[in-house]
Amino acid sequence: MLKSFGVSLLSGGLDSSTVTAYAKTRIDNLTSLTFLYGQTHSKEVECARTISSNMGIQHKLIDVSFLREVAWYSALTNPNEFSIPAGRGDDEIGLGIPISYVPMRNTIFLSLASSYLESQILHAIEVDRLDTSQIKAYIFMAPNEIDYSGYPDCRPEFYEQFSNILKVGSKLSSQYEIQISIETPIIHKSKAQIVKMAVELNVPLHHTWSCYMGTKEPCGECDSCILRSNGFREAGIIDPLITGTGI
Amino acid sequence: MLKSFGVSLLSGGLDSSTVTAYAKTRIDNLTSLTFLYGQTHSKEVECARTISSNMGIQHKLIDVSFLREVAWYSALTNPNEFSIPAGRGDDEIGLGIPISYVPMRNTIFLSLASSYLESQILHAIEVDRLDTSQIKAYIFMAPNEIDYSGYPDCRPEFYEQFSNILKVGSKLSSQYEIQISIETPIIHKSKAQIVKMAVELNVPLHHTWSCYMGTKEPCGECDSCILRSNGFREAGIIDPLITGTGI
Repeated sequence: MLKSFGVSLLSGGLDSSTVTAYAKTRIDNLTSLTFLYGQTHSKEVECARTISSNMGIQHKLIDVSFLREVAWYSALTNPNEFSIPAGRGDDEIGLGIPISYVPMRNTIFLSLASSYLESQILHAIEVDRLDTSQIKAYIFMAPNEIDYSGYPDCRPEFYEQFSNILKVGSKLSSQYEIQISIETPIIHKSKAQIVKMAVELNVPLHHTWSCYMGTKEPCGECDSCILRSNGFREAGIIDPLITGTGI
Repeated sequence: MLKSFGVSLLSGGLDSSTVTAYAKTRIDNLTSLTFLYGQTHSKEVECARTISSNMGIQHKLIDVSFLREVAWYSALTNPNEFSIPAGRGDDEIGLGIPISYVPMRNTIFLSLASSYLESQILHAIEVDRLDTSQIKAYIFMAPNEIDYSGYPDCRPEFYEQFSNILKVGSKLSSQYEIQISIETPIIHKSKAQIVKMAVELNVPLHHTWSCYMGTKEPCGECDSCILRSNGFREAGIIDPLITGTGI
């Protein structure tokens, strides 16, 4: 019997929750991974945990707060030293990659996600004696090249290159001919399309959290709140997080 | 004036110390990075620190002990659960990648090394206003395909693929057209050749530590001690660590 293993990177926001719900429809053994670092606040972690529990999948929190010393030149890992510019306007796009860029962030996250997934599958093969010809492996991630057009590690070609790393640099591939596939189902979608997809997949939208702040209510003013709000408006759907109506 | 930035991954062993000494001859601003995880013991960390100080370069210790939960299926990250087979004989090579393999280890280490190097260089450009056309960037690493022929992430094609990640996935490359080069100067060398190279480069061999154990004297029995001992014998050089003669 075919068995699919997968990990889905889940921050607790709208995008990654939608991708995780999509992954749930395709994967037998799915784990959501939440990375705790820099500006991540307990609100997001709590949302990621609740969403995973709501979807009936395993959740793993990985503390990578040491990134403040590694990927140190960034407003996300060292907010006190380098500040995020308020409200990125359209006229600023094209002026360069902003200080909120975390050096090699998605490369680091993909490395860790693939290491965790490879550990799970190697154990299933070598200890539980699962038949290798029956195994499929996937990493789900929620980059979006529209919202983050300036970020080099949010473009499709980056994910294609990382697939090659998995082809040559893993035991799964070298010894067992299992190729981990990287899935980025919303990479080309607009925020409105993502909102519609979330509704179709029954994502518990009232538990998702997109705001940069860890306050009780979303601030409504940060980049992330504005993107989310525009997305719901264009999709013609009311954001249950704002109205408190639930879904 | 041309300025070269580099990081060198330094465990404190013979191989990485030799590569770091080689890097020192080529790089203006060199930092050695030591990753602390799993079986790393304080002896190795102390050696890495002493060697860096001896070479007059900056040293950075990065605690990645959380890898025991991520790259969990390995005798190196979880020695109590999965044990390292004693003395790997020639007849065992080819039987597969051993349990000492750490899933995606070199991908994780290269991601972190490139993130740190990118942070340093972005800061030099955007804060210190260094001229981008004058900057060269390098990561030095000490994989060896002879000693670790079974490890997928010790082969040249893995490093070629990771270079492509740096080409498409970094701000340095996308915005400033600076390509980080990955240097693996001992990848094709025998242990005897590495010993000779170390002597030529004045590596403080009496401070290097190759043994898996953190005891006062090397055990002389683990894979690493045997590889080192054979290398010195074939090179016709006395290991100062064993004789206590120093160099």
